[in-house]
Amino acid sequence: MIYLDYVATTPLSDDIYQTYTQLLKKYFANADSAYRLGYEVNRLMETSRAKIASMLHVKEDELIFTSCASEANNLAIKGVAFQYQNRGRHIITTAIEHSSVANTCRELAEVFGFEVDYLSVDNQGHIDLEELKSLIRPDTILVTTMYVNNEIGVINPIKDIAKIIKTVNPKTKYHVDMVQALGKLPVDLNDIDLATFSAHKIFGLKGSGLLYKKHSTTLVPLINGGQQEFDLRGGTSNACTNIVLAKTIRLALESQKAHYDYVKKLNDFMREEIKKREALVINSPEDASPFILNISAPHYKPEVLVHDLESSGIYISTKSACSSKATEASHTLAAMHLDEEVAISALRLSFSHLTTMDELKTFLKALDESLTRVRKQR
Amino acid sequence: MIYLDYVATTPLSDDIYQTYTQLLKKYFANADSAYRLGYEVNRLMETSRAKIASMLHVKEDELIFTSCASEANNLAIKGVAFQYQNRGRHIITTAIEHSSVANTCRELAEVFGFEVDYLSVDNQGHIDLEELKSLIRPDTILVTTMYVNNEIGVINPIKDIAKIIKTVNPKTKYHVDMVQALGKLPVDLNDIDLATFSAHKIFGLKGSGLLYKKHSTTLVPLINGGQQEFDLRGGTSNACTNIVLAKTIRLALESQKAHYDYVKKLNDFMREEIKKREALVINSPEDASPFILNISAPHYKPEVLVHDLESSGIYISTKSACSSKATEASHTLAAMHLDEEVAISALRLSFSHLTTMDELKTFLKALDESLTRVRKQR
Repeated sequence: MIYLDYVATTPLSDDIYQTYTQLLKKYFANADSAYRLGYEVNRLMETSRAKIASMLHVKEDELIFTSCASEANNLAIKGVAFQYQNRGRHIITTAIEHSSVANTCRELAEVFGFEVDYLSVDNQGHIDLEELKSLIRPDTILVTTMYVNNEIGVINPIKDIAKIIKTVNPKTKYHVDMVQALGKLPVDLNDIDLATFSAHKIFGLKGSGLLYKKHSTTLVPLINGGQQEFDLRGGTSNACTNIVLAKTIRLALESQKAHYDYVKKLNDFMREEIKKREALVINSPEDASPFILNISAPHYKPEVLVHDLESSGIYISTKSACSSKATEASHTLAAMHLDEEVAISALRLSFSHLTTMDELKTFLKALDESLTRVRKQR
Repeated sequence: MIYLDYVATTPLSDDIYQTYTQLLKKYFANADSAYRLGYEVNRLMETSRAKIASMLHVKEDELIFTSCASEANNLAIKGVAFQYQNRGRHIITTAIEHSSVANTCRELAEVFGFEVDYLSVDNQGHIDLEELKSLIRPDTILVTTMYVNNEIGVINPIKDIAKIIKTVNPKTKYHVDMVQALGKLPVDLNDIDLATFSAHKIFGLKGSGLLYKKHSTTLVPLINGGQQEFDLRGGTSNACTNIVLAKTIRLALESQKAHYDYVKKLNDFMREEIKKREALVINSPEDASPFILNISAPHYKPEVLVHDLESSGIYISTKSACSSKATEASHTLAAMHLDEEVAISALRLSFSHLTTMDELKTFLKALDESLTRVRKQR
């Protein structure tokens, strides 16, 4: 099997599996129970939180465990919107966000009457900082952008965005979806008010997300309930999952530089190879995250190619798994105003430190064969 | 160790542990990925959903996997409130709900301007159906009550409640928090619009909840995102957790009658024993769920008794774990208007099929000793 869809999800690391299943066997008590069994679980969970806080250079009570990144994105965006709606009801995001940000903003507009502006992107997926500057208003309560786009890998200049926001309207909160950045690019939360992370994108568990929320930001909870997570997220703590998140993040951060350098080489190789092939174009900009390489095979149906490659045991995708059932072109590629033929024929490749050069060569050979075979069938 | 706090959470069943950890090792793909690896995971998850639907006698697409019961309660209540707010903004609940219902209603009132009425309870924890009848208005969009209270075990007459609602205002939706009922009492969803379930209360995993939503009810999503869960709950599916939920529920339902009968005997025994002790009173009504026995030791500090029992390896609680850090008396006991001394000195015992008569005898002996020892120290 050659898996080239690490952006959709990653295999669970053996190390994390071992630690987690041992915890799961041993610790069942409710972390909020007021006796030793509960205290033990709670202590381990708070130790995990403290370790993560130390790794991300933030305070312990600035981290909220959630059930996934989508929940964290919803908590951040709706939490800010409902908390600060008396100050203003204007939100800015980009045209190429993940569905958990895009659809949250849409719900805030359609159901709750918020006003949402969408930053456009150029044909490389880059936003325009001047446009951002012009859109920020006195009633703008939130800007939410991803750090790394999940389809083409374009990297947003989050430091510059933060600076502009603080200059034009210092009261505007800045939330960053960092799901595709953690363990891949440097993460600096200094100028950011809220940031979202996910475990299953970095070889950890599904059902495990994290929201960073700066002290100075207040949220209306998304899931009301008990006193868990500083009253910001009710529900019996998924303690073992939260405990193992510290190790998941540690492993990702420890190897970040090495993994980046390794994957950069893979990406460089792949770009050279793709450029050699007339049937293919590269959609990811040159300065994108090397972990993602979005290409198109114009005049081919991408689902047909994906299934043909699958018969060779190769797994790639056409777009975000969360939107895999939508029939239209990826909203990211649509926003880039690419040629229609390019936009509807995209293939998303994504790599990790587990990807080998041999896998990529096998993939290229299989892709060449697929392109020939599928062309013949047209 | 003698664990008498099964209502807070249950140990994970070995059977569930084995199945789950095997799944976790084998299936990592994103259930929404459009290739075989994803389809396999998705098929197992949909098989689980279909099995649960069959066991609960509902349709497959009436079941939504969530990260916990608190999320399911929030999704049901806020989902109905925001969906039907143009029809009306009045909600009815009871004074003795779990914090994930009570605080959700409070947020709807405080942040979103909904009007919430709270059904009072008598000193046995029973609601008054006449009061319910009088409170339902043309603009009442939702009634939400628990089936079994998590502190005293009082059972709400949900069939009668549903009947009254449908008679007085057939458009009013009825949501029932069934967390403390599943696997303990018969569950009939026929007259119910929405119902909440939890895995970790029935020897399953934490981080695993379920919402039943009748076809005729529409919800505004709580966690916007991808196409998962019929567009009602975004986020990469926590597939292995969702897959094993079918087995968790099957094991609970298969043994329901036998477990009930067994625990009823334990409860009868305990009631007799508690009645013999002058220092103790029983707060749970005679017709409560036998799985919970709430008692008080007036003039004793309950935390001191809990910690004294803990030194004998016995684990009980004073109230809901989700509210364990609040210093005041349980809101359930407060709503019952018990004597102040009774309300502030409550101990919650809860049983399961794993509880033995010997454990209860050891507990009673330890409790007698604690009462003497603690009294001497006063």
